Amino acid sequence: MTITITAFERSPDGGKGLARDTRVRWALEEAGLPYEVRLVSFRAMKEAAHLALHPFGQIPTYEEGDLALFETGSIVLHIAERHAGLFPADANARARAITWMFAALNTVEPPILELVTVKLVEGDKPWKAERLPLVEDRVRARLNPLAARLGDGDWLDGGFSAGDLLMVSVLLRLRPSGLLNEFPSLAAYVARGEARPAYQRAFAAQLAINAAPLPAG
Amino acid sequence: MTITITAFERSPDGGKGLARDTRVRWALEEAGLPYEVRLVSFRAMKEAAHLALHPFGQIPTYEEGDLALFETGSIVLHIAERHAGLFPADANARARAITWMFAALNTVEPPILELVTVKLVEGDKPWKAERLPLVEDRVRARLNPLAARLGDGDWLDGGFSAGDLLMVSVLLRLRPSGLLNEFPSLAAYVARGEARPAYQRAFAAQLAINAAPLPAG
Repeated sequence: MTITITAFERSPDGGKGLARDTRVRWALEEAGLPYEVRLVSFRAMKEAAHLALHPFGQIPTYEEGDLALFETGSIVLHIAERHAGLFPADANARARAITWMFAALNTVEPPILELVTVKLVEGDKPWKAERLPLVEDRVRARLNPLAARLGDGDWLDGGFSAGDLLMVSVLLRLRPSGLLNEFPSLAAYVARGEARPAYQRAFAAQLAINAAPLPAG
Repeated sequence: MTITITAFERSPDGGKGLARDTRVRWALEEAGLPYEVRLVSFRAMKEAAHLALHPFGQIPTYEEGDLALFETGSIVLHIAERHAGLFPADANARARAITWMFAALNTVEPPILELVTVKLVEGDKPWKAERLPLVEDRVRARLNPLAARLGDGDWLDGGFSAGDLLMVSVLLRLRPSGLLNEFPSLAAYVARGEARPAYQRAFAAQLAINAAPLPAG
């Protein structure tokens, strides 16, 4: 069955790979699955046809036969459960990999998104300068224990898993802030993720779209 | 095998059920599973024994034989995958229920937690009054499409699922703000969740701990 995902017609990051379709592309590449991409404009994302797929009007979505999913975490889990390459075989190790997926999205990502809020969404507000270090400290409060748990391991729990895929994707957002480089073992962990051929293919595919001229009309 | 979870020795909310162990208790009650609770103090949560279970030094954790998990979403998923009561039988419907679990934790909860930041964590800052309506609008930007998708349904996608369990738990945090009551269908949805006997038992169990005198020592 054909897998179709959606992505921004033009990503707000201009092709740096931070849009969430990159996470899904990466998972599909790790699993060796071909997929098609339907590009959506900012306007189309808020229209009924797309809202039927994604009630919050975002990307990516995932369609496979009768099944339609949204939420990157759920899509990556769906792929990981059905194909080799993203979960260990042992049931307990698999449950721990899922734990790291949720840790990436529910524990580590929220303060990182607050950093986007303070810098961009509220970048013109008078409290920006005073709030920034507070929010940065909240990010460090997640990175410190994460670095402690990673130790000198290559990945969070044995071999590479969907938990690492999401954690690396979340940490990648931090690079422009300089915070990631305060934690050399985490910076190296992210670099290991980026070096994977599946990530490289995913990154190149989203870049090709964002580097191409916009379709006329 | 005995299931043991951890919970606050004394919850910051004094027993209102907002600590995340309530979510896990609720899932265990829906599945009809007995469980034991180990209480941890704020100090013990940051010590090595607990950090071995939960690298970020939080509650709840979940132990079952050789398996140790953290992250509420992961624990609820683990329970739902192995026991009746939290997932539909159909594979596609199950994938959609998982999508709602991630939507609750990664799309709806982050702006709700920002509300806690603006009111409590940064409650003494000069920008509180001006930031509060901005953050409230971000919460509404999630509740509007959520209410649209729920429509006049009892639950988000057919029967009650682990997706509803987490979404109701996340929305419950909003009640003191008054924002939930701006969306009568969501307030009724939350009330339906709270009325479930399994939720009632979970709530009573955490309240009993928080209403009891602290152990001496």
